[in-house]
Amino acid sequence: MIQVPSLILDVAKCKKNIQEMALKAKKHDLTFRPHFKTHQSLEIGRWFKAYGVQQITVSSLEMADYFAEEWNDITVAFPTNILEIDRINALAKRVHLNVLVESVDTAKYLSENLRNTVGFFIKIDAGYHRTGLEPNKTTIINEILKISSAAQKLDFKGFLAHSGHTYKCNQHEDILEIHETCVRVLNNLKKIYSVDFPDLIVSLGDTPSCSIADHFSGIDEIRPGNFVFYDLMQHRIGSNAVDQISVAMACPIVAIHEDRNELVIYGGGVHFSKERLDTKNEEGVIYGGIVEKKGNVWGDLIPGTYIKSLSQEHGIVAVPSTHIKKYTIGDYLLIVPIHSCMTANLMKRFKTTEGEEIVMMNSW
Amino acid sequence: MIQVPSLILDVAKCKKNIQEMALKAKKHDLTFRPHFKTHQSLEIGRWFKAYGVQQITVSSLEMADYFAEEWNDITVAFPTNILEIDRINALAKRVHLNVLVESVDTAKYLSENLRNTVGFFIKIDAGYHRTGLEPNKTTIINEILKISSAAQKLDFKGFLAHSGHTYKCNQHEDILEIHETCVRVLNNLKKIYSVDFPDLIVSLGDTPSCSIADHFSGIDEIRPGNFVFYDLMQHRIGSNAVDQISVAMACPIVAIHEDRNELVIYGGGVHFSKERLDTKNEEGVIYGGIVEKKGNVWGDLIPGTYIKSLSQEHGIVAVPSTHIKKYTIGDYLLIVPIHSCMTANLMKRFKTTEGEEIVMMNSW
Repeated sequence: MIQVPSLILDVAKCKKNIQEMALKAKKHDLTFRPHFKTHQSLEIGRWFKAYGVQQITVSSLEMADYFAEEWNDITVAFPTNILEIDRINALAKRVHLNVLVESVDTAKYLSENLRNTVGFFIKIDAGYHRTGLEPNKTTIINEILKISSAAQKLDFKGFLAHSGHTYKCNQHEDILEIHETCVRVLNNLKKIYSVDFPDLIVSLGDTPSCSIADHFSGIDEIRPGNFVFYDLMQHRIGSNAVDQISVAMACPIVAIHEDRNELVIYGGGVHFSKERLDTKNEEGVIYGGIVEKKGNVWGDLIPGTYIKSLSQEHGIVAVPSTHIKKYTIGDYLLIVPIHSCMTANLMKRFKTTEGEEIVMMNSW
Repeated sequence: MIQVPSLILDVAKCKKNIQEMALKAKKHDLTFRPHFKTHQSLEIGRWFKAYGVQQITVSSLEMADYFAEEWNDITVAFPTNILEIDRINALAKRVHLNVLVESVDTAKYLSENLRNTVGFFIKIDAGYHRTGLEPNKTTIINEILKISSAAQKLDFKGFLAHSGHTYKCNQHEDILEIHETCVRVLNNLKKIYSVDFPDLIVSLGDTPSCSIADHFSGIDEIRPGNFVFYDLMQHRIGSNAVDQISVAMACPIVAIHEDRNELVIYGGGVHFSKERLDTKNEEGVIYGGIVEKKGNVWGDLIPGTYIKSLSQEHGIVAVPSTHIKKYTIGDYLLIVPIHSCMTANLMKRFKTTEGEEIVMMNSW
């Protein structure tokens, strides 16, 4: 029974998404180290164990702490925050912890302050230009490796990249081009450095590449996260069909403005986040897409029906004039989010289509 | 000691903001019913009591529940969600509860389902066009009042408007024009309906109008919220000076990219929200402004230093080339948010400049 904005999780779709990615990893002989920042939930995490997953990725040490309760091998895919050295040392005592290093300063700090062994990947910028070392910065890479080789507790694992610029693509060809560049960059580094470090691995992991690409030669590990739910942004990119999106917000209708073909829903920026999608069509910038209700699950997007603006608790939904009379106050809409990671992070809990509640990290 | 992204609250600035708005309300003989959705905190709420504030505004019934522990007169400034009728009835038993009505359907539903007396305002659309009845829709207004007059538990309080379109203004003149329209609209309604309802009041409340305007003739109540912290969006509008902004995010520097004059901070969309400001200058769209550190408080904005993009946990900060060498990994930045309500809602707690922690509703 929906009373307030609620994040609905279609368990069957979610498990199918997990299965398909696990099978893809297996097919290409890749270690599947899923990113858990999307669902942030111990329970959903357990669903991966059916596919033999034993290693995970998270985006903060706080999240690593949360998952350390049930996972023993965790990569924090974020540049090491040296201000959290105590937490790193405490975690490294509990689990196999990997961190990212991309500067001599950070390598030095870790080499001097680690009390327990920590694995590290050198973060490579394969073209996204958010962070990481460009692959030609071998002087810095060599310096980092010199420090780690002399250090007691700093264990070089390999190279890691994240091609987040696939999120800005509009067609498969562009994603595949970015992916191929990333594969090439990582293989080059592997070739050069496996002479001295024969066990090193290379890891990549954005959801668009992992969903679409079918060439992973030389790659050892993938780390996609968003695929567990997918969303409207990924759908626009071409990572998934609408029927693969496994989460939807249920939002009560609280006002109807027939004269301008708008509904007001209880569901705002504090529920969806203000993540937006520029549709490049007459809809312009949208904040969510309304889908058909089908019993307790959902079907396709309803054409011309989308969130056109959000304030703190209000959402304004545009509806075709031919449809406006179908809606009544006290009914609710089902809405697929633009970016499921951000929406889940705000909602902190899921109502499943099987009638259960699943809580996330830091839920109240 | 900063280790992770933290929301710092300058208590002196915050209390001064509260004092100034309270004095302004007093000067204009207005009831001051502050909106508590910005801080969502019982402790900050108590700071208003020093100025005689006894009535508050919130944006959800959940928030009304939270504040009902210490406040006895609460307006939920959001179109009534009839799916929460049980919560409305439970709350109305504890406190003087006011809700908003803007449709005959909602009025009917409440008249038939309330078990305890609830006050209501008719929500008026004074030009924002988010929601509410346009003031010329007197047929609907009359119908609602007919229903409430016949109802046992539905008590008409007056008319309420929110001119949220002031947030899109660039200069004082535009804000004042919107404010004057709102004052005129509410006074017209008051004149017409006070014949039958001599005790009705009219209420308005956006922070830009309440900060800037100095004409409130005929208005009975103001409900600003954001002013308690202010932020960069309000500063751009002209509601506040930078030195009135009472919150700043402290975010560790985790990577430095000298070649492109960028810092990577631990602080992303899950901390700031993705609220953005189009500066209309060469900076383009920004997500936060870096301010000078001055002991444990902060000073002015540092020119050319701003968040240029955010992902889930990463923030990318643009820095002038002449400044890039000043920063080191392990240092932290102080950053004033674009929209303090959204940032506070994500952070759920404050570190005060006086060394205390203040928690918000739904903190973990």
